[in-house]
Amino acid sequence: MILYHSPHTRSSSTIALLHELGLFDAVEIRVVTVRRGDGSGHADPANAHPEGKVPYLVDGDEHIRERGAIFTYLCEKTPQAGFAPQPGAPGRGAFLSWMAYYQGVMEPVMVATILGLATDGFASTFRGRDEITAELRRALDRGDYLLGDRYSAADLLVASPYLWLPDFVPDDGVIKAWLERCAARESLAQTAAYDSTLIADMT
Amino acid sequence: MILYHSPHTRSSSTIALLHELGLFDAVEIRVVTVRRGDGSGHADPANAHPEGKVPYLVDGDEHIRERGAIFTYLCEKTPQAGFAPQPGAPGRGAFLSWMAYYQGVMEPVMVATILGLATDGFASTFRGRDEITAELRRALDRGDYLLGDRYSAADLLVASPYLWLPDFVPDDGVIKAWLERCAARESLAQTAAYDSTLIADMT
Ligand SMILES: N[C@@H](CCC(=O)N[C@@H](CS)C(=O)NCC(=O)O)C(=O)O
Ligand SMILES: N[C@@H](CCC(=O)N[C@@H](CS)C(=O)NCC(=O)O)C(=O)O
Repeated sequence: MILYHSPHTRSSSTIALLHELGLFDAVEIRVVTVRRGDGSGHADPANAHPEGKVPYLVDGDEHIRERGAIFTYLCEKTPQAGFAPQPGAPGRGAFLSWMAYYQGVMEPVMVATILGLATDGFASTFRGRDEITAELRRALDRGDYLLGDRYSAADLLVASPYLWLPDFVPDDGVIKAWLERCAARESLAQTAAYDSTLIADMT
Repeated sequence: MILYHSPHTRSSSTIALLHELGLFDAVEIRVVTVRRGDGSGHADPANAHPEGKVPYLVDGDEHIRERGAIFTYLCEKTPQAGFAPQPGAPGRGAFLSWMAYYQGVMEPVMVATILGLATDGFASTFRGRDEITAELRRALDRGDYLLGDRYSAADLLVASPYLWLPDFVPDDGVIKAWLERCAARESLAQTAAYDSTLIADMT
């Protein structure tokens, strides 16, 4: 498998996933440049993603885009890691819901909020920060992690934007404590160290 | 399983999915009211969805929201229907990518476009209609359907907004021909007939 990656981007959570799944040494990581939010950088012709984004996963004939898909795919490839409920197992519906909710609600709401586009019309389809807070609380009132007692791929993906955008962290002790547990994962430290070596190599 | 449904909404594609999977008679459909885009209607206290939306699927302890998740979950429950590649099968990565891309890119881009919020900033994360057209063409240049020769759950979900929003249909013969094939499915006629009986019962 080949993962197209750029350090300090949304793709970094995929590096953390590889560590959690024991796949970091099994996947070939191709480091590419991307156009950054601040206008720096540019799409890399070496990136197989049709729009020059990261992450992008290639597994033989399979080309996989969007983290909700990449996370689901990689967790299905490595059931032995126990990092997500497999089809038919308890929690599978919750896991798939978090993947889709992250992708289809949380990311649009956060991007629209940052850009000042989170109008009433936008909220009437996607809702907003209060509903996201409520959705997190509903899960965390039942366990230490989104799917229950164990840290999973759902926590890794759903917590990831908050670790980059502290302004979005709700003023809620239960959610803050969960984010602290998520931030303490060894896989995030490993990812930060790896990304730092990539940045050092680039400069 | 219980599906919370309201006629003539995004949920209708889930009714079509039940028909395609042979599950229409196996799932209890609870018809609820929802707040509509035109301001009519209201969230229904009988709807288990925490924000009063449809579709919403309940399967024992599993509560599943967002169509990308509901489609994936129901296709995993009914592998015998052959309506989506199962984990490990060829095309699984493409299937998951379409579920996530629909949810995380197509729906946000379409809603933002309708609301006049599809600014350059919005497009820098989500891209826009041209990239969606290109993504569809890349798939349809290889086969009659998004995953190859056979109509699948990816076609049902991804085609669904175009059947409601003809203004979004790109001026592209290959895509138009694909949409015609998708629109001709018996399951859509069955859904339209079912939704009509629900509307008639309401009035
Ligand atoms: N929804 C995608 C987002 C991917 C994405 O936008 N990645 C950014 C990095 S933070 C990127 O590649 N930006 C470069 C560009 O848009 O050209 C996912 O979750 O995988
Ligand atoms: N992303 C969700 C969208 C669900 C959704 O917004 N459904 C609309 C029906 S078209 C709804 O329930 N609206 C009522 C409301 O937002 O209160 C999905 O694909 O399942």
